[in-house]
Amino acid sequence: MYSIGIDIGGTNTDMGLVREDGKIIARSNIPTNAYTELEPYVRDIMDSISELMKDNNVDAIEGIGIGAPNGNFYTGCVDNAPNLTIKGVLNFEQEMHKYMNVPVVLSNDANAAAYGEMIYGGAKGLRHFIMFTLGTGVGSGIVVDGKLVHGSTGGAGELGHNILIPNGRQCSCGRKGCLETYTSARGIVQTYRELKAEKGEPCPEKVDSKMIGDMANQGDPTALKTWEVVADQLGLAMANSVTFSAPEAIFLMGGPTKVGDPLLKPLQKAFDKYLLNIYEGSCHIRMSELKANEVAILGAAALIKMKQ
Amino acid sequence: MYSIGIDIGGTNTDMGLVREDGKIIARSNIPTNAYTELEPYVRDIMDSISELMKDNNVDAIEGIGIGAPNGNFYTGCVDNAPNLTIKGVLNFEQEMHKYMNVPVVLSNDANAAAYGEMIYGGAKGLRHFIMFTLGTGVGSGIVVDGKLVHGSTGGAGELGHNILIPNGRQCSCGRKGCLETYTSARGIVQTYRELKAEKGEPCPEKVDSKMIGDMANQGDPTALKTWEVVADQLGLAMANSVTFSAPEAIFLMGGPTKVGDPLLKPLQKAFDKYLLNIYEGSCHIRMSELKANEVAILGAAALIKMKQ
Repeated sequence: MYSIGIDIGGTNTDMGLVREDGKIIARSNIPTNAYTELEPYVRDIMDSISELMKDNNVDAIEGIGIGAPNGNFYTGCVDNAPNLTIKGVLNFEQEMHKYMNVPVVLSNDANAAAYGEMIYGGAKGLRHFIMFTLGTGVGSGIVVDGKLVHGSTGGAGELGHNILIPNGRQCSCGRKGCLETYTSARGIVQTYRELKAEKGEPCPEKVDSKMIGDMANQGDPTALKTWEVVADQLGLAMANSVTFSAPEAIFLMGGPTKVGDPLLKPLQKAFDKYLLNIYEGSCHIRMSELKANEVAILGAAALIKMKQ
Repeated sequence: MYSIGIDIGGTNTDMGLVREDGKIIARSNIPTNAYTELEPYVRDIMDSISELMKDNNVDAIEGIGIGAPNGNFYTGCVDNAPNLTIKGVLNFEQEMHKYMNVPVVLSNDANAAAYGEMIYGGAKGLRHFIMFTLGTGVGSGIVVDGKLVHGSTGGAGELGHNILIPNGRQCSCGRKGCLETYTSARGIVQTYRELKAEKGEPCPEKVDSKMIGDMANQGDPTALKTWEVVADQLGLAMANSVTFSAPEAIFLMGGPTKVGDPLLKPLQKAFDKYLLNIYEGSCHIRMSELKANEVAILGAAALIKMKQ
């Protein structure tokens, strides 16, 4: 059996035809920001899907899963996503059913990533785990008893906006001290800049988290210190999340994690330090086993399995 | 139908015969700390249960629910509870089945309180809520999709040990800054003492959270300030918990909450201030609707409903 996974980003919409075993058979994409109305956008998506199916001799699909900013599992809508050029409450489920009568399931991208890990990746068979995704922001998806936690609104699992440090850094959400302000790509850069300033050293004008990662792996002390600070903050957030659902594993994915040891070694130390003693040995930090360029489509496709 | 609820405390073991509608028909108790072995303890509990049933002409019960420190839902055991005189891993389920072949369900007291609220109290019909219990410590019980979250170990829902303020107050768990160190009865007293010291005012040698509550309701400025500080901390913790499971309600219970407005008014303000905007209006702070002297037995009895 096959399914379709769609990753809706502000710039591009990526689609993939996914086989039962998690292999992406074929992909296509259209530019999200070329549209300001839902109807033509969905029409073009459905055309792409039909082509993907025809080109690969697939007659039927199990459903369409969509990972989207503000994607709401309960309503099948994208609710006022600030970074989309199509505004308002967008009822994808209804619109897609005009073309194809298959289940359409939406969720936000971090939830989709968590579910993808469970269906196709390293979380197969796990009943309780949490996924943290580091990138432009910090997202999370939480699985309890083998089910994604959507909460009463569909908006559960926003651990990037857990306030880690009261009255800490200003967050784009309007509040202060959110985890995201420390462990997103931007937060990591800010920490590096602050450490450079503390040392009275000039900071390169253009610096990103990838460069700070490269510098750390070449032994640069400020870069190494940056990752230690980030690891301490992320380790605390992870340990705090364990007091909620006592997961078997916490998964980690996203660009900044590619730095490897400079983040992961101090992260394990921080996690162990901050973990409440009753959970010792019961929860392990693991890296996502899905490929970075596949996780969005696989995560979206995995959402279909929730309807079964 | 009837069930039995048992509240195991370090000093006393309270038992109640509970009717389907949540009325406690009859109660009895034995001194927990008179025992150092499980067998005679359970024998005396079962004798008490038999008497309760006989005295009230009840022939059969649906099951026995037990709220106990370190009570483990998965194993039916109490695991090394530090404040019990009976040591080790105590298999209540097995031991009780020697006397009566009914379901025996264990959980910790805060989980039981949450479940009691759902079956008999103000959370009837809610699918997503969190219970915070303030007392000697701070406990919590989390309901997701109408089910109590036990996690992979049975030890989920320990939000009292969520680290609220990194490197904050020393906690009895060995770590620093846990919510419990600020919003437990002891934490409240410590805040009062600190505020008095800041003002250079003498602090009464004997002071407890009840007295600080009475003083606040009489207009004492330091006492009022104490509750404001506590409310700010608890409001932050509650708002953080919403990013996890997006509950419809957060319930609050326990001795310190009896102070009323001096805590509850600033608590609502703090919660509103700290809540991520996407959750605005979706989650409400509510007081437990169970009576303080009934919640432990009703919560324990409610656990039976999980087996159905």
